[in-house]
Amino acid sequence: MSDIQFRSDMTVELIDSSASDLSVVRAARVSTKTESKSAWGDEKLIEFLMKNRHGTPFEHNSFTMYVEAPIFVFREWQRHRIGISYNEQSGRYTEFKPVFYIPDEDRALIQQGKPGHYEFVAGTDDQIMGTVVGLSWTSGSAFGAYAALLEMGIAKEVARMCLPVNTYSSMYVTWNARSIMNFLSLRTKREDSKFPSFPQREIEMCADQVEEIWSQGMPLTAAAFDKHGRVAP
Amino acid sequence: MSDIQFRSDMTVELIDSSASDLSVVRAARVSTKTESKSAWGDEKLIEFLMKNRHGTPFEHNSFTMYVEAPIFVFREWQRHRIGISYNEQSGRYTEFKPVFYIPDEDRALIQQGKPGHYEFVAGTDDQIMGTVVGLSWTSGSAFGAYAALLEMGIAKEVARMCLPVNTYSSMYVTWNARSIMNFLSLRTKREDSKFPSFPQREIEMCADQVEEIWSQGMPLTAAAFDKHGRVAP
Amino acid sequence: MSDIQFRSDMTVELIDSSASDLSVVRAARVSTKTESKSAWGDEKLIEFLMKNRHGTPFEHNSFTMYVEAPIFVFREWQRHRIGISYNEQSGRYTEFKPVFYIPDEDRALIQQGKPGHYEFVAGTDDQIMGTVVGLSWTSGSAFGAYAALLEMGIAKEVARMCLPVNTYSSMYVTWNARSIMNFLSLRTKREDSKFPSFPQREIEMCADQVEEIWSQGMPLTAAAFDKHGRVAP
Amino acid sequence: MSDIQFRSDMTVELIDSSASDLSVVRAARVSTKTESKSAWGDEKLIEFLMKNRHGTPFEHNSFTMYVEAPIFVFREWQRHRIGISYNEQSGRYTEFKPVFYIPDEDRALIQQGKPGHYEFVAGTDDQIMGTVVGLSWTSGSAFGAYAALLEMGIAKEVARMCLPVNTYSSMYVTWNARSIMNFLSLRTKREDSKFPSFPQREIEMCADQVEEIWSQGMPLTAAAFDKHGRVAP
Repeated sequence: MSDIQFRSDMTVELIDSSASDLSVVRAARVSTKTESKSAWGDEKLIEFLMKNRHGTPFEHNSFTMYVEAPIFVFREWQRHRIGISYNEQSGRYTEFKPVFYIPDEDRALIQQGKPGHYEFVAGTDDQIMGTVVGLSWTSGSAFGAYAALLEMGIAKEVARMCLPVNTYSSMYVTWNARSIMNFLSLRTKREDSKFPSFPQREIEMCADQVEEIWSQGMPLTAAAFDKHGRVAP
Repeated sequence: MSDIQFRSDMTVELIDSSASDLSVVRAARVSTKTESKSAWGDEKLIEFLMKNRHGTPFEHNSFTMYVEAPIFVFREWQRHRIGISYNEQSGRYTEFKPVFYIPDEDRALIQQGKPGHYEFVAGTDDQIMGTVVGLSWTSGSAFGAYAALLEMGIAKEVARMCLPVNTYSSMYVTWNARSIMNFLSLRTKREDSKFPSFPQREIEMCADQVEEIWSQGMPLTAAAFDKHGRVAP
Repeated sequence: MSDIQFRSDMTVELIDSSASDLSVVRAARVSTKTESKSAWGDEKLIEFLMKNRHGTPFEHNSFTMYVEAPIFVFREWQRHRIGISYNEQSGRYTEFKPVFYIPDEDRALIQQGKPGHYEFVAGTDDQIMGTVVGLSWTSGSAFGAYAALLEMGIAKEVARMCLPVNTYSSMYVTWNARSIMNFLSLRTKREDSKFPSFPQREIEMCADQVEEIWSQGMPLTAAAFDKHGRVAP
Repeated sequence: MSDIQFRSDMTVELIDSSASDLSVVRAARVSTKTESKSAWGDEKLIEFLMKNRHGTPFEHNSFTMYVEAPIFVFREWQRHRIGISYNEQSGRYTEFKPVFYIPDEDRALIQQGKPGHYEFVAGTDDQIMGTVVGLSWTSGSAFGAYAALLEMGIAKEVARMCLPVNTYSSMYVTWNARSIMNFLSLRTKREDSKFPSFPQREIEMCADQVEEIWSQGMPLTAAAFDKHGRVAP
């Protein structure tokens, strides 16, 4: 139990990719090959596709990422079903390590307003302290019970039932620019979004890293996404 | 805290459906209409489709079910992405009730054998007692922390981070016979399966109820599924 | 050959459904059950979900439709992959009947403008006559060749290679309100659409019938879709 | 019209990929990381996953292919909906070139037996000649009508209605090993398949090329697929 670890951050790393803005252009031009080649430059074509929501040309690419995040984040992430593949650490076949999420001190803890218009504001020192103490205490004692049950010979798939949803897990995710844009449109909160979203901060921390990785592989596409209101095509 | 509740069972209820064996036959016959009508009876046609893995005729039907099960079961269930729709209780917008899963005494707790060939056997009295005590203690104390954090004014989406994965949640699931058969082939363990699966007992408890509901709506299809090795077409 | 038939219309018929506006409300409320029941009426809740693009509650319903349309329409339709199931008449196992599509006289035949800004205008009498004659002649002679090849004993799957894409086929389609709205947003052209689409007229003729059927089953949902710019949630 | 072209072959070319057997192993091991590393070699692990139908580790890779094939082949191909992305040449925005499929002389043209047990045998010289003449004649005259309608100023999307389904089109396809294996299991006919399929020869000609490309990128996976009955995991 001495090695219990509390984290406030998320890991998103690029493992492999096959992606470029060119892949978008190439796929779009198979549809319209005789007319467009001269008329449209690559950048203008990508903007045209984004603005007019021609989605399929954005699917001919692939990013594999490795993610570490708490279970409650994975629960939200894995609700995305289309153009996305997952392999997550199994609680049936592996032992969880004692790594738990505790919000950073600048994570706004208090929710105000009515459903559909929530805003989050900072907590008082007492509220921050209460959250840190409450979560670290439940994490630690749950992990103690988990270790004890394993020690008694109980199956991993049973012992893990006591672990809280702030336990870190890990997974590989493979997806394409279209499914990434759909994820970003729902899991980031930006001023310039045509359709505002209200993601939980913790999945947005992952989404920010996803966007960083993706936009390096497909910079023109990412710029067009931003420019046209962050609507997934 | 006085009203904390421990359950060992799962709820799966039919809410709505549009399903019959006839829907399979009708869809299959649009493909082959001129030849088959006289040659094949409905039952024989369904068996032919199942055996030869013609899957699409099994998609023209729909079952909506209401489910109550612990979070670790929903985590496995929601990995199914195809032909399936979910709406689950949100930990961001609702308060979880203090309902937790504890295995029944006849749930085999001990895992033996090597990866890929695990078997489960009953625990000793001490192991059973340890599991019940461990899970009920962590459930109760986690819920205490959850209630205290809410009381302090912490946002629900933050407070719920301390809840364990044996907390009950609820959802609506809508799917069709093809996605149901895929689920059953992976989430039940039967002697007569052509491809054996090793589901965790708790999701199999749900799957057994799903099969009961589905087989009442589409009895010939369910019989053909069983007869041909429980392979999803 | 005497019974060759030319049509200018499409068939879309409701075969079966399990659908209501209530199914949307019910699924949405499982997510937020403790707070919303009093605050929001059904209609207001559906509008909120539509406007804010909460898509999943619109998936817990099902429509099975029977469609007759030319192959070039089915080619566009079947590019829709998500939440949609098809069984189409097979050219390998059935003989096509000599039914062919010829545009009605009020179908605008002439395309003007640049890519991305095409408009269609009426043809001259000569252009209309040329189209009718050209299509009816190629349809008839192709069907003559098809019949002759079948008569010679050639396999149906080979003989059908000569048939033109204006040959009518038939299929069953099963889908839900969310996939229907996605289809309608792309396959209808309306003044009040937030994202304009430029569907080919023939698939729009099908889409109009789909919308008629769907909006009778889910009138509040259809009204909210219209009101909020015909953007699929 | 002088440049009309008849082909009997299909084009499938690799454009881009991000794929290796290692990607399968890596994804599988995130699930089971603590136990397996020493016990299983890569090859043995891939065989274990294939045999036991653990499908998701086969999704973390990507192949983009360029395909030229007749429309009737694309119609079958595009019925595959899962883990697959398409961009096809548009008959609305581009002019089709006069390239048409005519079966090679060793293509068996005659279908014998009952539904579900069809076999194909060679045609007589007369039947072969009839097929070649019939298809080349209908192709040529349809293309003549198409060119004439375009010449008259009729929109491409209308003029193309007269083109037969043996007209060549082109597309980009992006998919992963799991969707490729599903395609191969249904679109190739092999002695050693656990579930026999009866694909039309023309799509099998494409599938053979797909398999060649894919098996070079993921040789251990392809060998395991073959060894375990060509059942998609």
